Amino acid sequence: MRIDHAGIATHDASATAALYADLFDVELAHEETFEGMSVVFLAFENGYFELLEPQEGGTIARYLERNGPGIHHLAIETDDASGALERAREMGIECIDEQPRPGAWGHEVAFLHPRDTGGVLLEFVEH
Amino acid sequence: MRIDHAGIATHDASATAALYADLFDVELAHEETFEGMSVVFLAFENGYFELLEPQEGGTIARYLERNGPGIHHLAIETDDASGALERAREMGIECIDEQPRPGAWGHEVAFLHPRDTGGVLLEFVEH
Repeated sequence: MRIDHAGIATHDASATAALYADLFDVELAHEETFEGMSVVFLAFENGYFELLEPQEGGTIARYLERNGPGIHHLAIETDDASGALERAREMGIECIDEQPRPGAWGHEVAFLHPRDTGGVLLEFVEH
Repeated sequence: MRIDHAGIATHDASATAALYADLFDVELAHEETFEGMSVVFLAFENGYFELLEPQEGGTIARYLERNGPGIHHLAIETDDASGALERAREMGIECIDEQPRPGAWGHEVAFLHPRDTGGVLLEFVEH
């Protein structure tokens, strides 16, 4: 499997994207509004930063209220998100998503509960 | 630049490594004791998870006390860590390390202050 992206919660996706673009010489790969969030993907040579700015309430808005901006999750790319999720379930890991669901950028995504994964919110993503 | 690794603070690097090895079908790439920590690198196809388990006090021990286990930092690979650090300084970003210093796995590393980088603790790493 591959590391697909690090998801980063921010109050201002545009400003954070500009900062990282300057700092790392990376380019904007994709942006969209998804589930009430401005979502920006910045392309490194081998993966992405996904910036998540809430435009209304929701998971990321609550995360920002509690923690401030910062690293929210890590996403692992698989060509079989359903199979990966089934494997996690067999291992006794609580799956936030019962089945892969449509995520940003047209990908299929499924999240695992950080309680069972070393405190890390992990996402399977299938392109 | 490339995403090199996600640094993850844990109370038990061996157990977390075994969990992720099972979940992601990844293998142990390197382990060592470094600056009072058990450090384990797990190899994905395109980068690493770096598990950090403190064996005594220190930054990661304090992080665990405050936050519990979870994602600690993101490391970006560059072939010129000094140049990258200089660029960050020119941008007005506070650099935790004045110059690159020896890090785990024999790499040169330098950290930036999360206050100036969108709440994300960022590391430049030069192999």
